Amino acid sequence: MNLARLARLRDQYRSALLDDVVPFWLRHSLDHEQGGYFTLLDRDGSLYGTDKPVWLQGREIWLFATLYADVEKRPEWLAAAELGLRFLEAHCFDESGKMYFAVTREGRPLRMRRYVFSEVFACLAYAAMYRATGTGRYRDRAAEMFARFLRFLRTPGLAAAKVDPRTRPMKGLSPLMCLLNMSETLARCGIDSAPSVLGSPPAKIETVLEDTIAEILRDFVKPQQNCVLETVAPDGSAVDGPDGRVMNPGHAIECAWFMLETAQRRGRPDLVASALSIARMSLERGWDATYGGLLYFVDVAGKPATQLEHDMKLWWPHNEALIATLMLHQMTGDAEMERWFEKLHEWTFAHFPDAQHGEWYGYLHRNGSVSTPIKGGMWKGAFHVPRGLLYCWKMLEKAAG
Amino acid sequence: MNLARLARLRDQYRSALLDDVVPFWLRHSLDHEQGGYFTLLDRDGSLYGTDKPVWLQGREIWLFATLYADVEKRPEWLAAAELGLRFLEAHCFDESGKMYFAVTREGRPLRMRRYVFSEVFACLAYAAMYRATGTGRYRDRAAEMFARFLRFLRTPGLAAAKVDPRTRPMKGLSPLMCLLNMSETLARCGIDSAPSVLGSPPAKIETVLEDTIAEILRDFVKPQQNCVLETVAPDGSAVDGPDGRVMNPGHAIECAWFMLETAQRRGRPDLVASALSIARMSLERGWDATYGGLLYFVDVAGKPATQLEHDMKLWWPHNEALIATLMLHQMTGDAEMERWFEKLHEWTFAHFPDAQHGEWYGYLHRNGSVSTPIKGGMWKGAFHVPRGLLYCWKMLEKAAG
Repeated sequence: MNLARLARLRDQYRSALLDDVVPFWLRHSLDHEQGGYFTLLDRDGSLYGTDKPVWLQGREIWLFATLYADVEKRPEWLAAAELGLRFLEAHCFDESGKMYFAVTREGRPLRMRRYVFSEVFACLAYAAMYRATGTGRYRDRAAEMFARFLRFLRTPGLAAAKVDPRTRPMKGLSPLMCLLNMSETLARCGIDSAPSVLGSPPAKIETVLEDTIAEILRDFVKPQQNCVLETVAPDGSAVDGPDGRVMNPGHAIECAWFMLETAQRRGRPDLVASALSIARMSLERGWDATYGGLLYFVDVAGKPATQLEHDMKLWWPHNEALIATLMLHQMTGDAEMERWFEKLHEWTFAHFPDAQHGEWYGYLHRNGSVSTPIKGGMWKGAFHVPRGLLYCWKMLEKAAG
Repeated sequence: MNLARLARLRDQYRSALLDDVVPFWLRHSLDHEQGGYFTLLDRDGSLYGTDKPVWLQGREIWLFATLYADVEKRPEWLAAAELGLRFLEAHCFDESGKMYFAVTREGRPLRMRRYVFSEVFACLAYAAMYRATGTGRYRDRAAEMFARFLRFLRTPGLAAAKVDPRTRPMKGLSPLMCLLNMSETLARCGIDSAPSVLGSPPAKIETVLEDTIAEILRDFVKPQQNCVLETVAPDGSAVDGPDGRVMNPGHAIECAWFMLETAQRRGRPDLVASALSIARMSLERGWDATYGGLLYFVDVAGKPATQLEHDMKLWWPHNEALIATLMLHQMTGDAEMERWFEKLHEWTFAHFPDAQHGEWYGYLHRNGSVSTPIKGGMWKGAFHVPRGLLYCWKMLEKAAG
């Protein structure tokens, strides 16, 4: 990319973030009466529901704290992060310290799930709050959330399996992707260990990080099949049937840039090569040659994908792919990644942003038309769009000056 | 409809059932080695997986036993039903008698779910086997499956709620729809009571049937809002938020024709009027004015539906709507229902059947294009398509002679 192109892109990503997306969430999402964030936002930002998904509380805290820490010390951003954190601490944990999946507007418990992904986003939220404020308690809470997630993952029998493990033992990419993201985040905060929680052994962050990367590369990444699998047997061998053939290109490419962050911090060219390979496979498998954009699920044997939404175009894989391709291009100079970034950029900005009401649509049909005009829901909140814009802006700024 | 039109439709439905759909399942679905039915069938009937969903085992037994009982005493149909029943009895129940949701090809347990819908289709399967063969044990097993379902539904705390009932108590239409269908089916088999199971009280079938119809009409059917809700509070009042505004037009119209069967058997004009009202609301709410076909989920307040598949066109609501509109037209002479039948018929036969490989696609995009070419999966099996064709054929035959 020449400098003029870099500067134009930098301005576009910066403006999309600071003039459109962040103001949209500041305007529509903060619940000044009951605390926390609304996320069930219709096209124009009006509410179609007031329940509060806990993942998205943690994610929005992360956003505002990160903007305060890394972009500008705007008091309204810190206040917005604190509004979410107070609600999270007051209402999103049960008596045992496990986090809910969803609560009501007032913070009454709606749904507890068998797994612990709410803790992942609470960990990221606390880590960002620590970076924003330097408060030691936030650092300790980030480490504790990490320890709780790790304990859950590593204590046999704690996470009830959907499929009978005596018949078909399986493991998924998602929890490892979360561990990767959390451990790199904690390492960057200077946190080197996670405490013992409920009898679990304490853990060294860098060791968890290395083990997680090794497990992903050994068991899920399959260069010979040109894919990254979502689900494998515990030893990394193939699982019989459709579940064992699912690839989620968005997940895979998200893993790629998480690894690149570790590669940057620790100077690890081997991880850059792995991330490049993962990104290539994700894009080759995921890109829809007919309509453009990234498919949501792909069957790696070319059989039909069985998820009803398999061929929809969702916002977040596009954000993840933009980050990964730009990061790879900047770290390696790889021309193919530059072409992918431009292709993704063009499709993404042509289809997702809502010029009339701001922010982005989240759910498009395969052909790129809008399936539902919501700007937020139980899964889409103030996270992937602004995170993607922020990361790309900062990379472009570094390159363009 | 004039006689020529009736006769033409009769022949079309008969031929679709007996020359296309039933042969497709006979050819591709029977597992002559391990027993039971394959349902993970690709476009051409080849397998993309061998797991066996238990709902679909029961449903396919129902189909072949019903064909044998009501259409013709073809030995291959009875043999096909028995192949499924042997597998069901050998592999689909755990030690406590609760049914699995899915098992492997060999019948090893894959997935147990918190609810008991597998029992619904086992009940229908046993009832059809009783009608096909007159075997008393099948009659008793049908009654026992019914009793197990009823016990599950009526024993507080047995069915773990997804949403905390202390915060937001809710009840769904689905279990009542199943009770309605099962109790009418048992009544038609001359079964008048269900036994005590695991300490539950025995139940009179007709009483359960009447109570179920009354509860649906009182709590879920909302003529003033022109809708049938999927989820309401236990007293029938509205549930706050998107969950409380969901209508599934296919479910609602399925309830309508189940009620019409009771109306026919018992001579109940009040139920005909209710079913007519439900069908009208389902079609007005569900019909897609832009592309035609029935939407999968609708928000009754006109807010965005949040299910990713909300605007897809699935096969089964169309089958249910064809049955309901034709039945209503024949029972009442209602001209509006005739027009709806013709409209549904045209759209359905223009979009779902696969002229090249037989049977029907199940999952279309909103615009009617094919999303996935599978003929069967974990949810689509030998049930709604052939049941719809059979019911319509028989009604058309009765009218046309």
